[in-house]
Amino acid sequence: MSKLIITAAVTGSVHTPSLSPYLPLTPDEIAADAILAAKAGAALVHVHARDPQTGKPSADPALYEKIVTTISAATDAAICITTGGSKEMTVAERARSVALLKPELASLNTGSMNFAIHPLAAKIKEPRFDWEIPFLQATEDWIFPNTFKTLAEFATFMTAAGTKPELEVYDAGMLSNVQFLLSTGVLKAPIHLQFVLGILGGMQASVGNLVFLHESACRMIGEKNFTWSLSAAGRAQLPMMATAMGMGGNVRVGLEDNLYLAPKVLAKSSAEQVERIMTIAQALSIPVATPSEARQILGLKGAGNVGWAQKSAAE
Amino acid sequence: MSKLIITAAVTGSVHTPSLSPYLPLTPDEIAADAILAAKAGAALVHVHARDPQTGKPSADPALYEKIVTTISAATDAAICITTGGSKEMTVAERARSVALLKPELASLNTGSMNFAIHPLAAKIKEPRFDWEIPFLQATEDWIFPNTFKTLAEFATFMTAAGTKPELEVYDAGMLSNVQFLLSTGVLKAPIHLQFVLGILGGMQASVGNLVFLHESACRMIGEKNFTWSLSAAGRAQLPMMATAMGMGGNVRVGLEDNLYLAPKVLAKSSAEQVERIMTIAQALSIPVATPSEARQILGLKGAGNVGWAQKSAAE
Amino acid sequence: MSKLIITAAVTGSVHTPSLSPYLPLTPDEIAADAILAAKAGAALVHVHARDPQTGKPSADPALYEKIVTTISAATDAAICITTGGSKEMTVAERARSVALLKPELASLNTGSMNFAIHPLAAKIKEPRFDWEIPFLQATEDWIFPNTFKTLAEFATFMTAAGTKPELEVYDAGMLSNVQFLLSTGVLKAPIHLQFVLGILGGMQASVGNLVFLHESACRMIGEKNFTWSLSAAGRAQLPMMATAMGMGGNVRVGLEDNLYLAPKVLAKSSAEQVERIMTIAQALSIPVATPSEARQILGLKGAGNVGWAQKSAAE
Amino acid sequence: MSKLIITAAVTGSVHTPSLSPYLPLTPDEIAADAILAAKAGAALVHVHARDPQTGKPSADPALYEKIVTTISAATDAAICITTGGSKEMTVAERARSVALLKPELASLNTGSMNFAIHPLAAKIKEPRFDWEIPFLQATEDWIFPNTFKTLAEFATFMTAAGTKPELEVYDAGMLSNVQFLLSTGVLKAPIHLQFVLGILGGMQASVGNLVFLHESACRMIGEKNFTWSLSAAGRAQLPMMATAMGMGGNVRVGLEDNLYLAPKVLAKSSAEQVERIMTIAQALSIPVATPSEARQILGLKGAGNVGWAQKSAAE
Repeated sequence: MSKLIITAAVTGSVHTPSLSPYLPLTPDEIAADAILAAKAGAALVHVHARDPQTGKPSADPALYEKIVTTISAATDAAICITTGGSKEMTVAERARSVALLKPELASLNTGSMNFAIHPLAAKIKEPRFDWEIPFLQATEDWIFPNTFKTLAEFATFMTAAGTKPELEVYDAGMLSNVQFLLSTGVLKAPIHLQFVLGILGGMQASVGNLVFLHESACRMIGEKNFTWSLSAAGRAQLPMMATAMGMGGNVRVGLEDNLYLAPKVLAKSSAEQVERIMTIAQALSIPVATPSEARQILGLKGAGNVGWAQKSAAE
Repeated sequence: MSKLIITAAVTGSVHTPSLSPYLPLTPDEIAADAILAAKAGAALVHVHARDPQTGKPSADPALYEKIVTTISAATDAAICITTGGSKEMTVAERARSVALLKPELASLNTGSMNFAIHPLAAKIKEPRFDWEIPFLQATEDWIFPNTFKTLAEFATFMTAAGTKPELEVYDAGMLSNVQFLLSTGVLKAPIHLQFVLGILGGMQASVGNLVFLHESACRMIGEKNFTWSLSAAGRAQLPMMATAMGMGGNVRVGLEDNLYLAPKVLAKSSAEQVERIMTIAQALSIPVATPSEARQILGLKGAGNVGWAQKSAAE
Repeated sequence: MSKLIITAAVTGSVHTPSLSPYLPLTPDEIAADAILAAKAGAALVHVHARDPQTGKPSADPALYEKIVTTISAATDAAICITTGGSKEMTVAERARSVALLKPELASLNTGSMNFAIHPLAAKIKEPRFDWEIPFLQATEDWIFPNTFKTLAEFATFMTAAGTKPELEVYDAGMLSNVQFLLSTGVLKAPIHLQFVLGILGGMQASVGNLVFLHESACRMIGEKNFTWSLSAAGRAQLPMMATAMGMGGNVRVGLEDNLYLAPKVLAKSSAEQVERIMTIAQALSIPVATPSEARQILGLKGAGNVGWAQKSAAE
Repeated sequence: MSKLIITAAVTGSVHTPSLSPYLPLTPDEIAADAILAAKAGAALVHVHARDPQTGKPSADPALYEKIVTTISAATDAAICITTGGSKEMTVAERARSVALLKPELASLNTGSMNFAIHPLAAKIKEPRFDWEIPFLQATEDWIFPNTFKTLAEFATFMTAAGTKPELEVYDAGMLSNVQFLLSTGVLKAPIHLQFVLGILGGMQASVGNLVFLHESACRMIGEKNFTWSLSAAGRAQLPMMATAMGMGGNVRVGLEDNLYLAPKVLAKSSAEQVERIMTIAQALSIPVATPSEARQILGLKGAGNVGWAQKSAAE
């Protein structure tokens, strides 16, 4: 049985500060949450940056550098940097930190879609920051843009950086996109898929949908040509992870995807969700991968080869 | 057994003139193809307009008016006007002809996606028009934009016009969008779904994908709350239609979706494809709906209530 | 595109004489129906024998010999002899004619199940023969017996006879049985599967069920390790065949599976159903296999190597 | 969210004594294991009896009575008595204990199938009892007989006894059997389904198979007309339960289905498996039903209305 890779996605760019006091906002808070999650059992941490004053999603490479160097100083977890960004960033901005920092893994979103989180606005009664409600509401008119041209550009600069793309799949058609990019050589097998279910605009988080995507991927890409992980938004998070683990998949938890630990109980950290996964893994006798085992399974270049390690070595 | 509604989509905005000499381009050609298709058995015709000089997709309401009045003068088929438009039109332009002409049915595309037809460019050796190859190639960087805000606006003006939306579903997540719009009251059951399979950027045209979408729709929307039809791009067209017919669905054929009648044999008209459907329906003992039966099944307002009939009556 | 193999199963042992005056009963009638079907386009014919006096299913090898020699004298179609038999035959009796006649193909039913046709009894108002109603009613308490031991014995004697097993799959679990027999070496790839849907006791005839079985077979057995065909009982027959053809499968029609040509219209011969398939195949541009092409696709030993040809050559 | 009903099936008639020293054999051992499981969180216990001298499955009502009265004296768990029996019992023998003891729940196996456990024989090096290896090997030639006639008889006497049938579904076709029995009034909604996956002869234990069965049941029977639980044989047991729990289903564990707690670690009791379920339920924030909540969910007649309670009250 293959070992289970747990990813912690600690802040994302979907939730806003008023939705949970535990959402990490500053580089130090984000790194601290990632470190806790890694100590709890996460072999990978997935990071976004936020403006430390306002908590707003940010594309500033300096923030990213602070986050990843802090994490790397304290844990051996492999780091995945987002290229998803948020509504207010250009495609070029979304790519910048990955191009500069050359992490082991970066997200690559495999198609365009409505990415609608405007229903969240109604949950905020007294916003801590003025930007929050307009930011959420504006997604009613937002498309998350990932054209075939963008996909090819992102894949190309990741290849140049030795960064493995984590291919985010929100909908069934995105598997066709991936298959097309494999057929044209833009992507090369083995690839790593991250199914992201439960975003309004993409597929819902259900066991049937996961089975359909997984079986489609086996048929379209070939069972031996990919590894996969699951992310599920909102309250479906933990139950869906239990299924993914039983199917031989890997899992992603963290406050990016779900602010709760249980119905009406906010998670105080992403680590609390990781602990739940560790408990379930133990109950199911599923062995959990260490960071170095995860690197081997995914074919990552190693912590010594990321941009910030080499920069630090050069200094 | 419910009667089979055959739609003919005669020109679309995907194919370009050099791909087939039989693709109708001028209002007269488009109307003529639609009329032939109706005579062959299509109860609905789905129309786009093109610039009569260049064959390029056009949003000009005068062209649309010419097309629909010509068709209505010769057949009783119900007319569906696209709001899909093409890469070079704004959302407002895509809506204009429907708002003015108030047809019985109009397409409403239920989400945003990459809509990539750039691989077609390689099939054109000697383009008849300069715009064709750049038009196709540019779709590598194109997103078909249909945000939740657009969806609500389109649904609202169609309701005001008494025009039934034909909800185009290219991917699994779009069913979630439809479900959301039903839950917020933007759409009202019973709705009419058009599954469009085989576009690069959406789901592929396979029997398994159709079954998945149909079963998802039954679960999410309720079997009694929708009627459905299938469109499948390219060579999968006719075989996929045979399956849809066996599942109790309706079918769409025509040169918009597929230029061929058989491998390497171009269809000389959409009517030729309609004839194939008629042959299969007869072999399967499936009764075919007349235009008036189709109106009843779909709950359409009737040919006398479209904008151009009322304008003509008023004159 | 692979060529389509059409099988005609002309009489079976499910239907009884009172259900249709066109059901062939005597060896001559059965052979005549098979010959007509072959002339209409069937590359394979699937035969059962019946008592010429009463029309009751019979295991008498002399009847089988009469049927197959008559067919072979008039057509080149490959012949498949049943080992399914009927309720009143022992397992040994079911095997006898195949062991003696060594046909190119024989059915091998891949598991045990209730095989309940008792609801048919209510359709007979005035039975032509006394045995009919009790025969049908008794199936309420009948199990079609095909234990793992029987399966191994049948596979072994077919191998010895150079007869290719046509593996009848009525339910999802039977694919596990087939997988088990492959794993133990009782069966050898490539195998030929016949999905038989619509028998009460097994899976119903729906497109979703066919997709599920086909995808399960691909996953469990390997897409390149099997060919497949579909049989569907009752009125679902022709529509389900249209789907199977579109999926790249082969089809079986004939009065064994369905007595009708259209709702309330009895088929006058299995050939009439074959003609419908030919019409659909032509409309879908699917090429139809000749008997010799079918032999090549399925890896059959050839008409010259069946028992009755060799016996005749020896005489 | 509906509460989770945990069933413990403590001994069954599949495993033989040499496969685990922890398999309970005597009435006292069986009752003790059930009581432990109930204390660990099982709201239902599912019982078979075995000969106390040899551990061989037995149909002796005196043994069943000893088991159920011992359990009832110590716990409030609802008791389900098998009617599955084993290879060597007649259908009448399988029904006897239920008819006499009138429990709250009894299993009703919904179709006939090969039920093949002969591969287990190879796992026994030194049998404790002479009957074990022949018993297992003989299943290569065994059919688990449950004809439509038997099903109707069992359903009828259960109705008379006020015993709710737990409908065991091993294969997709059995759902058609259930649907047929509902259509003829032999069964009445709401019904309780127990999917039993992983028996050779039926469907394998996979997430895809569970989703297919569940969706088929929703479509064929109506989502509101049934409750369901899952049993999965062998090492898939606990991972499959985690999926079922996430899907809103109920679960069955116990030594009947799986002798292990983890790879190569025998479970010392069914209670150890129940504890694993409790741990997972807690990690997923799924509330667990008490016996009285389970009775309400399933519509059971109550512990005071079983045969042995009424007999005891009458004394």
